[in-house]
Amino acid sequence: MKIGVLGYRGRMGKALQSVAAEASVELVELLPDTQIGALDALIDFSSPSGLLEVAQRISDSPLPLVSGTTGLSQDEHTKLASLVKNRPFLHAANFSVGVNVLEHLVELAAKATRGFDIEVFEAHHRHKVDAPGGTAIFLAEAAARARELDLQSVAEWGRHGQVGPRSEDEIGFQVVRGGSIVGEHTVFFAGEGERLELTHRAQDRTIFARGALRAARWLVDKPTGNYSMRDVLFS
Amino acid sequence: MKIGVLGYRGRMGKALQSVAAEASVELVELLPDTQIGALDALIDFSSPSGLLEVAQRISDSPLPLVSGTTGLSQDEHTKLASLVKNRPFLHAANFSVGVNVLEHLVELAAKATRGFDIEVFEAHHRHKVDAPGGTAIFLAEAAARARELDLQSVAEWGRHGQVGPRSEDEIGFQVVRGGSIVGEHTVFFAGEGERLELTHRAQDRTIFARGALRAARWLVDKPTGNYSMRDVLFS
Amino acid sequence: MKIGVLGYRGRMGKALQSVAAEASVELVELLPDTQIGALDALIDFSSPSGLLEVAQRISDSPLPLVSGTTGLSQDEHTKLASLVKNRPFLHAANFSVGVNVLEHLVELAAKATRGFDIEVFEAHHRHKVDAPGGTAIFLAEAAARARELDLQSVAEWGRHGQVGPRSEDEIGFQVVRGGSIVGEHTVFFAGEGERLELTHRAQDRTIFARGALRAARWLVDKPTGNYSMRDVLFS
Amino acid sequence: MKIGVLGYRGRMGKALQSVAAEASVELVELLPDTQIGALDALIDFSSPSGLLEVAQRISDSPLPLVSGTTGLSQDEHTKLASLVKNRPFLHAANFSVGVNVLEHLVELAAKATRGFDIEVFEAHHRHKVDAPGGTAIFLAEAAARARELDLQSVAEWGRHGQVGPRSEDEIGFQVVRGGSIVGEHTVFFAGEGERLELTHRAQDRTIFARGALRAARWLVDKPTGNYSMRDVLFS
Repeated sequence: MKIGVLGYRGRMGKALQSVAAEASVELVELLPDTQIGALDALIDFSSPSGLLEVAQRISDSPLPLVSGTTGLSQDEHTKLASLVKNRPFLHAANFSVGVNVLEHLVELAAKATRGFDIEVFEAHHRHKVDAPGGTAIFLAEAAARARELDLQSVAEWGRHGQVGPRSEDEIGFQVVRGGSIVGEHTVFFAGEGERLELTHRAQDRTIFARGALRAARWLVDKPTGNYSMRDVLFS
Repeated sequence: MKIGVLGYRGRMGKALQSVAAEASVELVELLPDTQIGALDALIDFSSPSGLLEVAQRISDSPLPLVSGTTGLSQDEHTKLASLVKNRPFLHAANFSVGVNVLEHLVELAAKATRGFDIEVFEAHHRHKVDAPGGTAIFLAEAAARARELDLQSVAEWGRHGQVGPRSEDEIGFQVVRGGSIVGEHTVFFAGEGERLELTHRAQDRTIFARGALRAARWLVDKPTGNYSMRDVLFS
Repeated sequence: MKIGVLGYRGRMGKALQSVAAEASVELVELLPDTQIGALDALIDFSSPSGLLEVAQRISDSPLPLVSGTTGLSQDEHTKLASLVKNRPFLHAANFSVGVNVLEHLVELAAKATRGFDIEVFEAHHRHKVDAPGGTAIFLAEAAARARELDLQSVAEWGRHGQVGPRSEDEIGFQVVRGGSIVGEHTVFFAGEGERLELTHRAQDRTIFARGALRAARWLVDKPTGNYSMRDVLFS
Repeated sequence: MKIGVLGYRGRMGKALQSVAAEASVELVELLPDTQIGALDALIDFSSPSGLLEVAQRISDSPLPLVSGTTGLSQDEHTKLASLVKNRPFLHAANFSVGVNVLEHLVELAAKATRGFDIEVFEAHHRHKVDAPGGTAIFLAEAAARARELDLQSVAEWGRHGQVGPRSEDEIGFQVVRGGSIVGEHTVFFAGEGERLELTHRAQDRTIFARGALRAARWLVDKPTGNYSMRDVLFS
């Protein structure tokens, strides 16, 4: 299987190269003169403009496209949607198999444990500047969706002082920052007399590359349409 | 809602009484002269013979029956099956909401994470005599089923010495015994660069009573048939 | 061994009675006519005024006194100090063996891991009204003391938004509230490439009674002086 | 500070080079013509014969020596002891700051929690061939020493079947093997109603290099004698 990569020399491009062999995939850098017809799929980790440019370039071919580019404006999203509508297309903000499996489990657990209290714990290295991180929000949104709650309305971002008893729908966040922690997430479901703790621990960043390759391989023989990592993992 | 209890004065019967109010359920001891027609459901925590006797007694009525009795012989199972076939019937070895949710999540995760290694950790108090406990086996069987493995063939009950590298299909067990731990279980899914840890922690034994009441309430308006806790929680 | 209890009918008094037998201790309620001379030690879980009254009453005897009463004013503290100066006296806000061992370990670890980032996680049931709880503060103060930091100056009570990179001396708190969790605490020491997590899990409230009895037994043959749980556990 | 390295081109030598800058240390490969007098200390990660050879070579100088070489025979140990007796010498099987701090905490906790049950959990990647690993034994020995127990007599290497209730002195081991886990260890102290869990998590192998550099820097101005990582961290 031959996969073109846009963003081949970036951090994710290098990570893809480091795990390509174990996935039995041949990677080629997508250059202006690359023969699109010789590729089985395309993986993009570039920029909104890079993604739109390549989507335009391949618009006549049904080449499957996997993209991890984030930060598109509403306009760019609309443009992209029309450019990818004739191919299998998969977008994800986080390609880790474990995180995407966890997100699905969290949604199921949140539904099945009504009455249990939900809390989302995450830990990252000392250099991370935002809190909580995007993956914590991704997981909390799955829980909120399952309970038919609006996350922004029920989020409790940090408890300090005389906060009073917990409300039933509250979703609390706890944010650790320290050392070189790559990324850990636990969603708690705490009931009377028992609780569930669903945890993901990332050890290094190759997991995103592995997940993107798994997505590309899966996408190759799929019909036209928009897909998510959940489709790759659970269908 | 009025629920009859067989085994009312036993440990589980007492636990049911302690949580009945919070579930808005009225419990009555099932005695020889109890009017079956006045009950919405029956919960049994007695013995194989007690269960068979009551199943015989209510055989003419469609009364929903929830049973946590274990240890039936093959003959008793056959007899029971014919006696309960005209009613909604639910049997479970463990009624905890959390454990049953976990079992379902473990099966899904085992399917979605092929290539990740599965290990089952459990901890109980110092007096427990068997290792691993039944719930650890219950969870491991869900994982094995998802991977189309025979648990007895792939179980690794304890590693000691020069055991060599782990085989791919192996499911390892780790058993802690200590103090007054009520019951904790973690299923690990360990891949390259990441892992999932799905944990249940029990704090006291009322969780089994809560789950049995939830099952009975759910069963009340169901059609004739055999049900499991998974049906209660995920359908 | 015969121990008098002030607050015998309160919650802690009942807990003491429930574990006295396993500690081979005879408990008696301290009443106005109780013969002080027949006691080996006195345990107080009453109120500031109750404590001062009994301290006055026994001021002529060297009877060892263990107290878990909190909330004394500065004046009451001064008065108490003069009343107990002729006996072995031990005061603690939390008598759990585990928490007090943890506090000592946290201080040692904080000293030995300079350069590692310290974070304090705690979880309690949904009804707890203050955040973080007193035990989290007790542990964080041990860490701060070891690093010669002022906890109020370095505490980070909850991260939300664009908080920027972590500062070196920061001590972060994470507070979970949910279900019926009795009390769990983890102190993280996160360095480059590794971390320590020191955790205490409480399962029920008898641990405070067990610790108070252990303190009283230990105090019986000690010289006059003020003692702490750390003395009981580590000397 | 200038430190000579024996085993400069090996795995640990490379790890030392990768973290030397952050420790403000200059590393030089120890070659036959390296001027010993220009060095502040020597770090050895070679082999028993390499270590003995270099110890012989520097026998006339008081150069501080740090060694992580293992597998010496009894004869080699004796020979080494006489060769290093005129210098500050530190040997360790594991140089991780976290593991060595943990070992000390385990010893203290084991002493202070008599009556609590001790269990040792460890997890490593799927390729590790021995079980449990050396660090788990190192930690268990600290616990056994504190309780005045012989580890080989009280070790429970894996529970399976009708094992009966736990004995008081037993130290149980639990071994996870899976994925790419670098190394995690938890020592449990489980009592009635509470427990402590002391955990170390390694993320990558640079922690051994960092610890060895910390040891070498610490050793530079110490008097002649044998030292351990515990001296570096706690004195």
